[in-house]
Amino acid sequence: MSNADILTGEVIGTAVLILLGGGVVAGVVLKRSKAFNAGWLAITFGWGIGVLTGAYISTTLSGAHLNPAVTVGIAIKEGAWDKVPFYFLGQMIGAIIGATLVYVAYYGHFLAHLNDPETVKAQQEAQKNAPAGTTPPGPVLGVFSTGPEIRNPVQNVATETIATTVLVLAILALNLTEGLAVSGTGVLMVALVVVGIGLSLGGPTGYAINPARDLGPRIVHAVLPLPNKGGSDWSYAWVPVVGPLLGGAIAGGIYQLAFA
Amino acid sequence: MSNADILTGEVIGTAVLILLGGGVVAGVVLKRSKAFNAGWLAITFGWGIGVLTGAYISTTLSGAHLNPAVTVGIAIKEGAWDKVPFYFLGQMIGAIIGATLVYVAYYGHFLAHLNDPETVKAQQEAQKNAPAGTTPPGPVLGVFSTGPEIRNPVQNVATETIATTVLVLAILALNLTEGLAVSGTGVLMVALVVVGIGLSLGGPTGYAINPARDLGPRIVHAVLPLPNKGGSDWSYAWVPVVGPLLGGAIAGGIYQLAFA
Amino acid sequence: MSNADILTGEVIGTAVLILLGGGVVAGVVLKRSKAFNAGWLAITFGWGIGVLTGAYISTTLSGAHLNPAVTVGIAIKEGAWDKVPFYFLGQMIGAIIGATLVYVAYYGHFLAHLNDPETVKAQQEAQKNAPAGTTPPGPVLGVFSTGPEIRNPVQNVATETIATTVLVLAILALNLTEGLAVSGTGVLMVALVVVGIGLSLGGPTGYAINPARDLGPRIVHAVLPLPNKGGSDWSYAWVPVVGPLLGGAIAGGIYQLAFA
Amino acid sequence: MSNADILTGEVIGTAVLILLGGGVVAGVVLKRSKAFNAGWLAITFGWGIGVLTGAYISTTLSGAHLNPAVTVGIAIKEGAWDKVPFYFLGQMIGAIIGATLVYVAYYGHFLAHLNDPETVKAQQEAQKNAPAGTTPPGPVLGVFSTGPEIRNPVQNVATETIATTVLVLAILALNLTEGLAVSGTGVLMVALVVVGIGLSLGGPTGYAINPARDLGPRIVHAVLPLPNKGGSDWSYAWVPVVGPLLGGAIAGGIYQLAFA
Repeated sequence: MSNADILTGEVIGTAVLILLGGGVVAGVVLKRSKAFNAGWLAITFGWGIGVLTGAYISTTLSGAHLNPAVTVGIAIKEGAWDKVPFYFLGQMIGAIIGATLVYVAYYGHFLAHLNDPETVKAQQEAQKNAPAGTTPPGPVLGVFSTGPEIRNPVQNVATETIATTVLVLAILALNLTEGLAVSGTGVLMVALVVVGIGLSLGGPTGYAINPARDLGPRIVHAVLPLPNKGGSDWSYAWVPVVGPLLGGAIAGGIYQLAFA
Repeated sequence: MSNADILTGEVIGTAVLILLGGGVVAGVVLKRSKAFNAGWLAITFGWGIGVLTGAYISTTLSGAHLNPAVTVGIAIKEGAWDKVPFYFLGQMIGAIIGATLVYVAYYGHFLAHLNDPETVKAQQEAQKNAPAGTTPPGPVLGVFSTGPEIRNPVQNVATETIATTVLVLAILALNLTEGLAVSGTGVLMVALVVVGIGLSLGGPTGYAINPARDLGPRIVHAVLPLPNKGGSDWSYAWVPVVGPLLGGAIAGGIYQLAFA
Repeated sequence: MSNADILTGEVIGTAVLILLGGGVVAGVVLKRSKAFNAGWLAITFGWGIGVLTGAYISTTLSGAHLNPAVTVGIAIKEGAWDKVPFYFLGQMIGAIIGATLVYVAYYGHFLAHLNDPETVKAQQEAQKNAPAGTTPPGPVLGVFSTGPEIRNPVQNVATETIATTVLVLAILALNLTEGLAVSGTGVLMVALVVVGIGLSLGGPTGYAINPARDLGPRIVHAVLPLPNKGGSDWSYAWVPVVGPLLGGAIAGGIYQLAFA
Repeated sequence: MSNADILTGEVIGTAVLILLGGGVVAGVVLKRSKAFNAGWLAITFGWGIGVLTGAYISTTLSGAHLNPAVTVGIAIKEGAWDKVPFYFLGQMIGAIIGATLVYVAYYGHFLAHLNDPETVKAQQEAQKNAPAGTTPPGPVLGVFSTGPEIRNPVQNVATETIATTVLVLAILALNLTEGLAVSGTGVLMVALVVVGIGLSLGGPTGYAINPARDLGPRIVHAVLPLPNKGGSDWSYAWVPVVGPLLGGAIAGGIYQLAFA
């Protein structure tokens, strides 16, 4: 794979992943959407199919990492670190494009939701109760980035690390099942694993399990000219970067010990 | 493929797609149906399996486009435009047959729903509030065609274009993963992509992502002798035609630039 | 395939199909079940996976028809009618065994539900309002057999016929996609089609789409010593036999015309 | 397969299975989780994908039994009993590790849930109504182990036996469909069967269908220093061991009679 193909593949694939992943959250949480209140199962399937779609589109170009934690795990397994910067770059650009496309696709609903008197009032309440000099996370931040239900950095990093270890270990091990390559269904299995991680380990932190998936859209949230958008919760932003990278590294290590 | 096979395949495949797609909406929205209020996840899986069923039935005859936007994307990729009219014709005939079969399968429920005093009253209210000389969208129009939650043509076209670009790009790229042809599972992946597009990008406009899927059933709605059926919302009808065709063309272009 | 293998395969496969299919309805409708009120999507996936499980178990023995309508469609396609009685016999025996196993697995919940004062009272009310000399359908009949939401034999037969035509046409056409045989995933696709038919066309009549699936369990319901079980609704019993057989025959005919 | 590979594979695979399976229950039942009240369909898909993930990870090492009942069924089929102790040991160790990881991933939510005044009060009420000298099952025991909705050992064993027979018979028979090995999709089918068993037969007892899945986490529940955790319901612990082992043996017997 040329560096250009890696970059192209990761940009397009990650953009599609974030468009569908952010899109399902937008659909479920924004008022007046047809998918409003469709529930957690809808969200987890939306993200899983985001992986499926983005990965099938990019697999022949870049191998479809779409996730720095996956890139780290594969680099540990294969010992090839020179391509890593191109993967990271493509993933971040793709995530930023994808989050922007969510904004375009749901533009009218963002405005309707953020200008809704109920939303405005709730955000004003949150602002009053927030420590002086801080801006509480905004009402649509969840469409872009993850946040914990119970804020505790050590605990939150632990949850993200465990969840990402499962993801990356599964990806590395799936490559051992040769039939999946023959049938081209390996991507489907990864997508289902992502659905399962969401269902099973997404409860505490919203399962970033991917630094680019969280950081790229958070930048978009910070930059976009949305009314009453509130804060981008930058104090939490390191958790869904560190936890997943740690998980990817641990999975790489387990793989080397148990499978290689 | 002969033109007759293309026509036969697209008619049967699109009819099945619309029968199952329109059927799931009928099941979820019509009173006294066992599927009443089964939710957005049910609707998206119903449409996805409509694609799966229609496409597996027609794939050996016509290649299972079932969607003018897909036909446009494939024509751009392969440069073969002479078959396009036969695809379009088959898709429109199939969509009209499928929507009619939904009417037959749910005939008793259409009558029960439309004659329900609550439905009649709501439609009368809507008529009162509608601009003079116009008929508001009817209470069962959603079983046939899509409509936006927030009416704004530019925004609505943008959403349909983005969603269709993802669909057609995925279909074009999936053909690059050779294993899927070996295992015959490519159609499954397209069906899952359609589920995902519904979950993630269906919130604003109901994801037509297919001109025939919207226009054919709208004609059936306009023609069918249903009591209190209200208007067919023809002023919106161009959006789910133009948006998807634009998306199919953009996907074809991205494919030529990045993958060919 | 020997007649003994056909009989064994169809008995075991259909028993598993009905055990899982009837089981999911029991789980969702019987009080004090953990699956209580799990919804229509749960029911349709339960039946679909019932098909998947029963069919994979029996496919090497009997080819996994598990449904007289499928047997009719295949007989029309292949012109081999001499095996048909063995298929029918195995399917009926299997359905009766499966429904009995549902009774065993949910025995405590059947008793708790049927002896619940609320159930008893509702059934007494229904009995009062029923025409003299008739017994209204019982409170757990739906675990065994289907019944229409709006009772109209012609309409109900039409719905069952349309739904079964889709099922059998899909089964016949899926065999044309050779990759599915290579990968062994054809059964999965049929199972997903069954999920989709339930979601999309199950609303009016509960999608028997299989005479044995309805008639075998209805016999079990009539025979089982359940308290306050009410009637077995024999006046409707012909509909889910005739409709599906008609659908199987129509699908066989369409196949001969369009695909053979 | 060496004994070391069997042990490694079963430990890792069962740990992942229990982490995702216990995790989805934690997500759905613990207060303040994003998956709170996501429903029975979410739980059954979570466990099914737990099987998928754990099995794909361990299949090349140990063949991915992950369940003593499966090991018994396969031993009956293949007559190879000497590896059985290594499977059992690995499964128990893995289940204990997996349940511990659920505790780590959801640590903050366990504390929040168990210290919630409502939980404390409900547990005190249950303690008052319990027979003298006994401790009623605790408020989070369901995250670890199964329990019946209607307590009746014979009935509960019967339900677990029937459900496990279906599971193990399906696993043994799936190996006969050669295409699944070619395409590497056999594990997917087993995972879907597990989803179906949950939907259809999980209502009465919560479908342990696996002695290690129930016993390992129950030990963890008994040992963990959780506040207000209540009892571990040891009087029921034999049911989800005996029922599944019986089911595995019956499935092995049916296989020998009908398929071998």
